[in-house]
Order: sequence, then C-alpha cells, then structure tokens
Amino acid sequence: ALQRLFDDWLPVDLAELISDLPENEQAILFRLLPKDVATETFEYLDFDAQQNLLNALTQKDVTHILNSMSADDRTALLEELPGPVAQELIKLLSFKEFKIAKTLLAYAEDSVGRLMSPDFLSVKKDWEIGKVLEYIRTYGHESETLNVIYVVDEHGKLVGEMLARDLLLSALDKKVEEIIDEDKLITLTATQDQKDALETFKRYDRVALPVVDSNGYLIGIVTVDDMLDVAEEEETENIQKFGGIEALEEPYIDVPLLELIKKRAGWLVILFLSEMLTASAMSYFEGELAKAIVLATFIPLVISSGGNSGSQAATLIIRSLSLGEISIHDWWKVMRREILSGLMLGSILGTIGIIRVVLWATILGHLTKVWVLIGITVGCSLVGIVLWGTLTGSMLPLLLKRLGFDPATSSAPFVATLVDVTGIVIYFTVASLVLKGVLL
Amino acid sequence: ALQRLFDDWLPVDLAELISDLPENEQAILFRLLPKDVATETFEYLDFDAQQNLLNALTQKDVTHILNSMSADDRTALLEELPGPVAQELIKLLSFKEFKIAKTLLAYAEDSVGRLMSPDFLSVKKDWEIGKVLEYIRTYGHESETLNVIYVVDEHGKLVGEMLARDLLLSALDKKVEEIIDEDKLITLTATQDQKDALETFKRYDRVALPVVDSNGYLIGIVTVDDMLDVAEEEETENIQKFGGIEALEEPYIDVPLLELIKKRAGWLVILFLSEMLTASAMSYFEGELAKAIVLATFIPLVISSGGNSGSQAATLIIRSLSLGEISIHDWWKVMRREILSGLMLGSILGTIGIIRVVLWATILGHLTKVWVLIGITVGCSLVGIVLWGTLTGSMLPLLLKRLGFDPATSSAPFVATLVDVTGIVIYFTVASLVLKGVLL
Ligand SMILES: [Mg+2]
Ligand SMILES: [Mg+2]
Ligand SMILES: [Mg+2]
Ligand SMILES: [Mg+2]
Ligand SMILES: [Mg+2]
Ligand SMILES: [Mg+2]
Ligand SMILES: [Mg+2]
Ligand SMILES: [Mg+2]
Ligand SMILES: [Mg+2]
Ligand SMILES: [Mg+2]
Ligand SMILES: [Mg+2]
Ligand SMILES: [Mg+2]
Ligand SMILES: [Mg+2]
Repeated sequence: ALQRLFDDWLPVDLAELISDLPENEQAILFRLLPKDVATETFEYLDFDAQQNLLNALTQKDVTHILNSMSADDRTALLEELPGPVAQELIKLLSFKEFKIAKTLLAYAEDSVGRLMSPDFLSVKKDWEIGKVLEYIRTYGHESETLNVIYVVDEHGKLVGEMLARDLLLSALDKKVEEIIDEDKLITLTATQDQKDALETFKRYDRVALPVVDSNGYLIGIVTVDDMLDVAEEEETENIQKFGGIEALEEPYIDVPLLELIKKRAGWLVILFLSEMLTASAMSYFEGELAKAIVLATFIPLVISSGGNSGSQAATLIIRSLSLGEISIHDWWKVMRREILSGLMLGSILGTIGIIRVVLWATILGHLTKVWVLIGITVGCSLVGIVLWGTLTGSMLPLLLKRLGFDPATSSAPFVATLVDVTGIVIYFTVASLVLKGVLL
Repeated sequence: ALQRLFDDWLPVDLAELISDLPENEQAILFRLLPKDVATETFEYLDFDAQQNLLNALTQKDVTHILNSMSADDRTALLEELPGPVAQELIKLLSFKEFKIAKTLLAYAEDSVGRLMSPDFLSVKKDWEIGKVLEYIRTYGHESETLNVIYVVDEHGKLVGEMLARDLLLSALDKKVEEIIDEDKLITLTATQDQKDALETFKRYDRVALPVVDSNGYLIGIVTVDDMLDVAEEEETENIQKFGGIEALEEPYIDVPLLELIKKRAGWLVILFLSEMLTASAMSYFEGELAKAIVLATFIPLVISSGGNSGSQAATLIIRSLSLGEISIHDWWKVMRREILSGLMLGSILGTIGIIRVVLWATILGHLTKVWVLIGITVGCSLVGIVLWGTLTGSMLPLLLKRLGFDPATSSAPFVATLVDVTGIVIYFTVASLVLKGVLL
C-alpha cells in the first residue's frame, strides 16, 4: 500500500522529495520505490543524495542501479566521485556496462563524450519502413530516444537520420534511403567541447544529435535535454568570469572554503597589484595635492565613474562578441558608437558633478571663484574619464580577442582598475590646467 | 539548374548565406529557392534580412510566406516590426491565419503565448493505437512536432500526452487511455513568463510541452528548440543586469545610439549620486588629510579592493540564488563563509599592501617608523575593507530578495559603490588609531 503512494509521482519530483529529506531517511523512502522508478529517480537526484544512497543501500541494490541507469547520468556521477570510490563502483558493472563506462570516462571533462549515450537504434538504409517499425518494436525499449533513429550503410558508417516524424508519415513499403537526405546530416564528435554541441543544437533545432568517431562510425547520441543543462552551466561560468572569479565547477555552498578562497584570491591579487599604480600616480601628483587638499576629496567620485562606465561597455561588448553580433572587424563601428556614448554619458555626469560642487559650496556659504573652478575641474575631468572608460571597456575585449585570449575573463573589473589609474592622471591634468595660478 | 545548386543545403545554412549578402542581392538568391524551402529559410533569417525581403519581394510571395510560415516565428517577426507595418502584413493573412496571428500577438512580450504554435495533433483517449497512427498519417503533415501527440477527453480537455516512443512501441490494438498517465501531465499556460517555461523544460526533460487555457483546454504547444533561444536571451539579460545596464532587447550594434545611452545613463547616474557620499566622507576627514597628505595616496588602492571583493561576493551569491542552490534562509551559513573568506582574502591583500608600502619606502631610501605605521594602516584597513566588501556583497542580494526586489539588478557595481564610501571611513578610522600622536 505504501508503495502505491508514489504511483502518481514523476521520477524528477520523487528525486526532489528525497533530496529534501534528512540523509538518514533518504534510503528508507528510496527503498519503497519499484525498481524501474528507483533507477530513474536516482538519475535525477543531486550528487549529495546520490552519494548518500550509494553508502546506505545494499551492494545488490547499488549494483542494480549502476547497471541500469542511463550511461550519461552514470558518467556524470562517476566523474564527481573521488577516484578510488569510482573505481570500486565500476567493479560492480557487468562486462558490457563496464566497457561503456570506461570509454565515456576516458573523454575529457566538458567534452561531448561525457554527455553521450550509447543507447541508440540504428537501421540499414536498404530496409523498408515496415521492417524498421518492427525492429523498433523489438529492440527500441532501451533506446535513450525514439525521436530519431540512425541509418548506417553496409559498413556501419552513419549516413543519415530518420525522425519519428518520417516514420509516422511514410508508407510502409518505402525504403529508408528514399527518405533520408545523406547530404544534410549534422554530427558531433566526442572530443568536441560541450559548448560547441550547444551551438549546434541551437542552430539546427534538433532534439538529438549523433556522435561519430574520426572514421564516421556512430558511437553515441546526445539529447537536447542535456543541452539545457549545459547552457545553464555555461551561463554560470560566464557570469563568474564577469565577476572576476575562476569558475567554481560546484554549487557555491558545496565548494570547500579553501577552494572558494583560492578561486577568488587570484584575480583579487592581480587587480590589487594593478591598482597599486594608483598609489604611484597619486604620489606623482603629491605636490598638487599638498597645495590643494580639497582636490583629494573628489578623487574616489571621479575615478569610480570611469570604472562604472568602463564595466558597462566591457559587459556589452563581451556579450555581443560571444553572441556573434559583432566581430573584431567591427572595431571602428564600435569605437565610433562608444566615443559618442562616452561623450554623452560623461557630459551628463559632468553636469551633475559641477552642480554638486557649486551647490555644496553655496549651501556651506563659502562659494568663491575657486569653488567654481573646482566644479569645472570635476565636470571636465568626468567627461574625459567617462569617455576613456567606455573606450577602454569596449576596446580591451576586442584587443584580447584579437590576441587570442578569452575576452570575457575578468574584463569588467580589470577595466575598472585600469581606468582608476588613468582617471587620476586625467583628473590632475585637468586640475593643473583649470586651477593654474589659482590654487596650483 | 541554378535552382538545384542549393538542394544539399539546410534552410538554416541558406538563411545564413542570404543574411551575409548585400541587401540588394538577398532577394535574387531567395527567389531561386523552391517554395517550401523558401518559407523555412525565411523563418531562420535574422530580423534585418526578413524585413529587407518583405520589401523586395512581390506581394504574392510575401502573402505566401506569411501564410505558410510557422505561427511562432511569424509572431516573433510581427512583434519586431513597427505597428503600422505589422498591421499591413496581417491583412495579407487568410482568415484562419489572421485569427491565429492576432491571438498570439495579444499575449504579453516574453510570455509563453508568444512562443506557442497552434499546429499540434490531438487524439481521443478511447482510440486504438492503430487508429491514431492512421490519423497521424492523414493529418500530421502540418504539425510542428510529431514527437508528442496530445490526448483530449470527450469535451476536448487535455488529459495526457503520447510520445512518439509510445506510438512506436505499443501494440496496435491497445487503447490510448491504457498508455497515457493522466496524473503525470505537465502543462504550461500562455500567460506564464518564458523563463518559467524554460525552468519546466529543464526540470522535466521534455522536447515539447502543451499550453492550456484556464479551463484546461489545449491551445498550443511550445517546443524545446525555442527554449535554447530563451536561455540565450535570459543569459544576455542577466549579464547586462550584472554590468549595471538595463536589458537592451536588441543586439548591441542595432540599438539606436540614443537608446543605448539611455539604457546606460540610468544606473550610471544612480551610482554617481551614491558615490558622492565619498566626497562627503573625504571632506569629513579633511583635517587628517591636511596633516598627512600621504594618506591620500593610498585611498584608491584600499577602497577599490573592497569593491572588487564585494563584486565577487555579489556575483557568487546572486547566481547561486538564481540557481536555487541557496535561499534567503541560508543567510547565516553564507555569512559565516563570507566572514572567513573576507578575513582570509583581506589578510592576503593586507600583507601585500604592507610589503608594498615598506618596500617602496626602503627603495626610495626614506624608510622610517612613520612609514612602517603607514604600512600597518594600509594593511589593517585592507583586512577591514575586504571583509566589509564580502559581507556587503553577499548580504545585499539576500536582503534585496527578502524585500521582494530582483537581487541581480546592478548589485555588483552598487556594492562596489557602497563599499567605496565605507572604505574611506574604515581607512581613516584605522589611520587615526595607528598614527595617533605620530602623524595625526
Ligand atoms: Mg533515463
Ligand atoms: Mg538524462
Ligand atoms: Mg565549460
Ligand atoms: Mg560538466
Ligand atoms: Mg534554434
Ligand atoms: Mg541524455
Ligand atoms: Mg572602483
Ligand atoms: Mg517551421
Ligand atoms: Mg521554430
Ligand atoms: Mg525576459
Ligand atoms: Mg523575446
Ligand atoms: Mg533536465
Ligand atoms: Mg516552435
């Protein structure tokens, strides 16, 4: 009776239910599930719950699960486990599954091979549709998908794919080769990056793609549901890059503290060392500072605006580059836009800046010609600094790309740092022009 | 003969070829395509090329394309066009297509309705599989997908879905209702946000999902290929939010300059106004500054480190929140991690900072007790500022979420700004403690 309680539940929902239980209760509920539901539910569990169950269940249950779960989900689990644990578990596999698991794990992390499933159906191109349908009914139960069936020639080379659509719409006496279009086959290779696979899926709107080896033999398939997960992972990586953090690879809350610190310290130190140039720049202008301490008051304000506008520009250009909306050849078009944007944005901030300085002096009752000139200094240097920020922010990613580097890596904070240094130089240069003979 | 040249090309590749041609040549190539290929190619063209062809082709061709293209792609095109142009084009539609187009456009932008296709197949639950297969062969040609067939009851209410897998594996005399599982149906509604649809697809690993109205009647379907595009759009939006820019909605290079500036000016001004507090803080410490101008030299260096560590923390927490890895209830767990991270990272930077100051003074040959104390001031305030940065960066997103705001919006630059202000206060407070009686 208790077993029937979860009859109406989908495996993914059961998986969530179990993951949310305390660790010592997870196995109790899991053992209530019928065998086939149990395996599918296990596939959807998060890694912590999977690991907990592997410890809590009997060796017999573990053996069953590992042998019956989808090859791609098993690869994902084994790659997360510590080496020795994974080795122990692989020993529980049947000879056939053992070979599959070993092959898939041999591919590099984040390669297509790690997402691949060897459970696909292939038919010969000289078969009639009637025979194909019969073949599917006999052998199709284990296939990862029946939305696409693969077609191979007499040597076993992949020559085409048949969609469920083709199977359902064709006359039974048609031959496979009459339906498929050999020239329009899209394939992946197992060593390709998962990111490339995602781009291929996006472009060709498929629900599954075949993976071939270097000789054109079909070795597995990748399904689109895994691509949604790849897209999510890639987004996380991209966002972390933007924030100046090395990609975490694991959920924030699960990353060991020391590793978390290591992933952050690298860029933080690089940015700190670069920012040291501000101290050098400042001491270069120590003479001016000594004569007009009031100038120091506005330094954080003016330089941070350059950093902010630079980060904005870098963000826009990096994303646009990665979407293929612009390429490095468009640099002049981008530069023109950014010069105009920078001038406009700088003028807006500059105007606010002048108003702030003059208004403040008025309110405090010490408005003099000097304060007006200080206001002009702040305003004019803001125009220059914001312009310089947008230019650096937009050109640095293009330059990095041109030099073969990844333009996304930490560009936004790095631009802000660069602009801080030049911002100080711009500010004091403007100040010495405007305030010459008055304060300086 | 020329027509046959493109026989081996897929529509998406033809679309790219055409989009890359100069505008006046696009129509020449397009007119060479057979009618059905032309429509599918048109669906894949980018918006500029689509618009160009609508102008260049005859009204007859335009009418054919608009009536035969997929309803969802047509919606996407019509929503991009200026109102009057769209109105003119809608008049070219047949009565049936006109009604469909009007209905779909009535849904809000970024809602599921805008991605919906009304071209699906539905069958009755008391039919036998044999009858279903016959029905598909007769009526399936127009269906957006045949990977899923929908099942309705006698009143037309959606009760289940049959996968191509079920159709291909079942005995012909089985009834539909024996195969489907009414309790496990997953549906979308047309007014839902596309983001929610993406989450549903991710969770349930489907290739298509049915859209129902408030009474449970099936009104359309959404396919997974469109979800990959939604994921890309969402990523762009998220990244732009991170960079402190309002979402652009269009490719960077296509956004009119004034709009581009408007999307950037908003946050830039807000950040600038907040950063004005640094000027107030600085002038509060003008006395200290006057006594020790050298203190000013290190201000950009120490405060920027708080901004950088704060941006890192904000990035991590915002992404983790949006992935559901943490919730606001985990605030204490997060805070503990961030206090430790902040102390560690601050100590690293602080140590480098002390070395920098002391080393520099040694090299310049003026190392005195004062310079060692300045080094200590820089080092200690770095610990405090970096700690404060990570705390602000990690807690502000949680707080914003708690208050019902979107934690992602511009948090990283905003945190940097907040931390600049407090950084100045921390720096001068540490300075007055360490340098009391020496310089101050
Ligand atoms: Mg499975
Ligand atoms: Mg799977
Ligand atoms: Mg990757
Ligand atoms: Mg991975
Ligand atoms: Mg696509
Ligand atoms: Mg898969
Ligand atoms: Mg800054
Ligand atoms: Mg279509
Ligand atoms: Mg489509
Ligand atoms: Mg949106
Ligand atoms: Mg949209
Ligand atoms: Mg999924
Ligand atoms: Mg669609």
